[in-house]
Amino acid sequence: MTDDNTNLPDNPDIPDTPDNLDVDKLDERVLDPGNLDAEHHALELEFREYLDSDNEEKVRELALDLSPGDLSEVLRPLSVEETTTILKLLPPDELADVLSEIDNRSLSVLFELLDVDEIADLIEEMPSDDGADVIAELDQDQAAEVLAAMDEEERSEVAELLQYAPETAGGLMGKEYTTCTEKQTAAEAVAALRGLEEGDLEETHFVYVVDNRGRLTGRVPLYRLVISGSDQLVSELMEADPLYVEVDLDQEEVASFARMHDLISVPVVDHQMRLVGRITADDVLDVMEEEATEDISHLAGVSVTEFGEQSSFRVARSRLPWLLGALVGQLGAVAVLNHFEASLEARVTLVIYIPMIMAMAGNIGIQNSSVVVRGLATGEIDFFHLGRHLLRELGTACMVGVSIAVAMAAVSMMFSGDPSISLVLGLTMLLVVLFAALAGAGIPLLLHRFGVDPAVATGPFITTANDVVSMLIYVGLATQMLNLGSGG
Amino acid sequence: MTDDNTNLPDNPDIPDTPDNLDVDKLDERVLDPGNLDAEHHALELEFREYLDSDNEEKVRELALDLSPGDLSEVLRPLSVEETTTILKLLPPDELADVLSEIDNRSLSVLFELLDVDEIADLIEEMPSDDGADVIAELDQDQAAEVLAAMDEEERSEVAELLQYAPETAGGLMGKEYTTCTEKQTAAEAVAALRGLEEGDLEETHFVYVVDNRGRLTGRVPLYRLVISGSDQLVSELMEADPLYVEVDLDQEEVASFARMHDLISVPVVDHQMRLVGRITADDVLDVMEEEATEDISHLAGVSVTEFGEQSSFRVARSRLPWLLGALVGQLGAVAVLNHFEASLEARVTLVIYIPMIMAMAGNIGIQNSSVVVRGLATGEIDFFHLGRHLLRELGTACMVGVSIAVAMAAVSMMFSGDPSISLVLGLTMLLVVLFAALAGAGIPLLLHRFGVDPAVATGPFITTANDVVSMLIYVGLATQMLNLGSGG
Repeated sequence: MTDDNTNLPDNPDIPDTPDNLDVDKLDERVLDPGNLDAEHHALELEFREYLDSDNEEKVRELALDLSPGDLSEVLRPLSVEETTTILKLLPPDELADVLSEIDNRSLSVLFELLDVDEIADLIEEMPSDDGADVIAELDQDQAAEVLAAMDEEERSEVAELLQYAPETAGGLMGKEYTTCTEKQTAAEAVAALRGLEEGDLEETHFVYVVDNRGRLTGRVPLYRLVISGSDQLVSELMEADPLYVEVDLDQEEVASFARMHDLISVPVVDHQMRLVGRITADDVLDVMEEEATEDISHLAGVSVTEFGEQSSFRVARSRLPWLLGALVGQLGAVAVLNHFEASLEARVTLVIYIPMIMAMAGNIGIQNSSVVVRGLATGEIDFFHLGRHLLRELGTACMVGVSIAVAMAAVSMMFSGDPSISLVLGLTMLLVVLFAALAGAGIPLLLHRFGVDPAVATGPFITTANDVVSMLIYVGLATQMLNLGSGG
Repeated sequence: MTDDNTNLPDNPDIPDTPDNLDVDKLDERVLDPGNLDAEHHALELEFREYLDSDNEEKVRELALDLSPGDLSEVLRPLSVEETTTILKLLPPDELADVLSEIDNRSLSVLFELLDVDEIADLIEEMPSDDGADVIAELDQDQAAEVLAAMDEEERSEVAELLQYAPETAGGLMGKEYTTCTEKQTAAEAVAALRGLEEGDLEETHFVYVVDNRGRLTGRVPLYRLVISGSDQLVSELMEADPLYVEVDLDQEEVASFARMHDLISVPVVDHQMRLVGRITADDVLDVMEEEATEDISHLAGVSVTEFGEQSSFRVARSRLPWLLGALVGQLGAVAVLNHFEASLEARVTLVIYIPMIMAMAGNIGIQNSSVVVRGLATGEIDFFHLGRHLLRELGTACMVGVSIAVAMAAVSMMFSGDPSISLVLGLTMLLVVLFAALAGAGIPLLLHRFGVDPAVATGPFITTANDVVSMLIYVGLATQMLNLGSGG
């Protein structure tokens, strides 16, 4: 690492810093945060140039000069082969930092190039939660071998974390924290902190207080250790009864709990209130990002796995089931129109409004279902106020329905000049809007009521239901009101 | 506040804690994070009961017993009047904590009940960034009066923050931080910390290091102050060249920067690199939540302001412009079918496939645009790899198009039994899928290329374009291939 950016005076009299302090760890190339895409792209091109000319030394220098966050961004557009070439050049501690950030496909290719001991060393360098995530990606035999090759302490931590379901508090938490008891002094709490490694200290904001059975009773914020005397008792300095989550709480609820209470570190306890881990703010940020992407994906009918996927074939394969499912659902609309073909033949002008009716039904269904899915995710709408939300949507739908009905009747007068057709269209729109609004809001609310994540079944499903029902309303009403013969 | 939950031994020999430590601040009712909705609902009912019986003392007790985060959640379903009744019973410091969390309508009603001095006192109690946000909600005259009534120090901080655009780093940052210089000692840095209030210390994780012109040169993490000797120099303890953002950076970019680098606190500098504020992790969480809601809203064609809105009328008013806009767009599809009415009259069976074609175009447009909008938001897709993403989508569209075309041809053989119609439908679907995919991915990418937030113009706009074009492809192809007379 070069030192030319540093502002440190070069004073030989300065005493040595404590052993576990890695001063100037942040002395990496600082990129302009207002122009990150361009900076990352320039670095990507630089990497490619060095890779093409096999200049390993330059590749290594450039990689070491970047923070793990920036390096993982720069690597994203590179191929798996290029990525592994670069990563293999890094020393283990730097590599471990980057591994927590990059995608799993590059990881598995890299691991094929390393032997079990090298992988074990790497995972020992990583925070325990990231290490457990990486091991969970390995196949069972390789995972067992890697665990066996790890140091006893790290192995037991990672093995413990592997027991928890990945999308729970247990799956998010790490083991890098330190505890003290109420009867200890500030100096003893500080001594406990000195036992942590520099990398772990960076994510430590509290010393947790436990009783003699390991149950969480308090927390001492670091600032209190900084500003108080060393002989003060922990019981005087601690905040009693801190907020916590239980180990099997769903990660989405962990994230909203942390956000609601502005927590930067969440202690995790088992069912006996014993402290078993802590979740850091950066993991909460990642969960929120993941969950928002999941909601959008479900609403749009795509799978989360396709994000970051480079192969068109795999993307097509993941999208086709959604599309073919919607196609099968649309057979209902085809059957409806097929059944009423005689009516349509008698008044072909009815046909020209079909796209408009379908589009309105679709727009309203999407508006309603998105508002419900997002409202449930952010806590804006909850289990105990579903009825109130449905009522609000019903009120909205009445007003929207009347407005759209009037607009639609006016449009049809313009094109067809037949008041009876305008009447059919106005009435159709009113009913379609009411149905689409109730289905759009009601289906996700019902799913939520019965414990199903509403985002999963919402998007294409509601659209299809709306299409079929709106065609039925339209041609059914038209056949009745215009006295057209039916039957296909 | 009751003390019955506390685990502190009742020992009279314990010496007094420093003045600015508010021990047991967290001694509030601890709710079960796995069952928060139910707990909040039970508390809501309890509040209503006390409110109905005008039992002010019980209302106050209950409100004081809850953390600000929980209280604001419990208040959410209550009316503005009920909310203000409860808030008026709180002492200023507790009230200030809650105000940062509740919505602006309750706030403005509450402020109508308070005089200028009371409002000024409340804002002085709040973190400077939240205080500035509240003042920004007041009308100009009231804002000026409140500012004039505030203490000099808080006034100047809040007035400074009011200069920055709300959705930038400057609009997010607070002034509660402390600095030292490289030549000072750890003890001097600790003394600077002691100057902060307890509430501000809770959000302090670094002492920032500045040079004699106030330019940011480093940061000292609190843990280093804890574990090192008091006479060590700041220059030995600090991390040089810390990551920072400039004051006018967009808040969305601040959030992704913080997430990419796992920052729990982001220093903000002006264009001369002078430290002017710091952004805390909880604000980053709020921005991410806000931005995800914004993306979903735009894709669905609803406004962000309707979240939390109780009035059906206001929701309807905010949704109608989107819907009427889409209706106007759909006039294109009506005009196309109107123009080809003679073709449709000659072969009415063509009509029954219209919903299916439109539905497929719609689904594919939404899939593509959502993936692009979300990918741009998370950084998965960036400015310099737009072409690569478009190519991936084109490849996907070819495979999806062929599959859907074959399925559609099979469906039409089933219903109409006419190979020439199947051929028309197959070809139509292939072209429709290609167009819908290109428009769905291409329009948001183009908007991004020219600096427009693609989420704004995406959802209903793309759907409408797809509908019109797909109808044109379908009836145009049918007229040509089946030798039907055209002209309306």
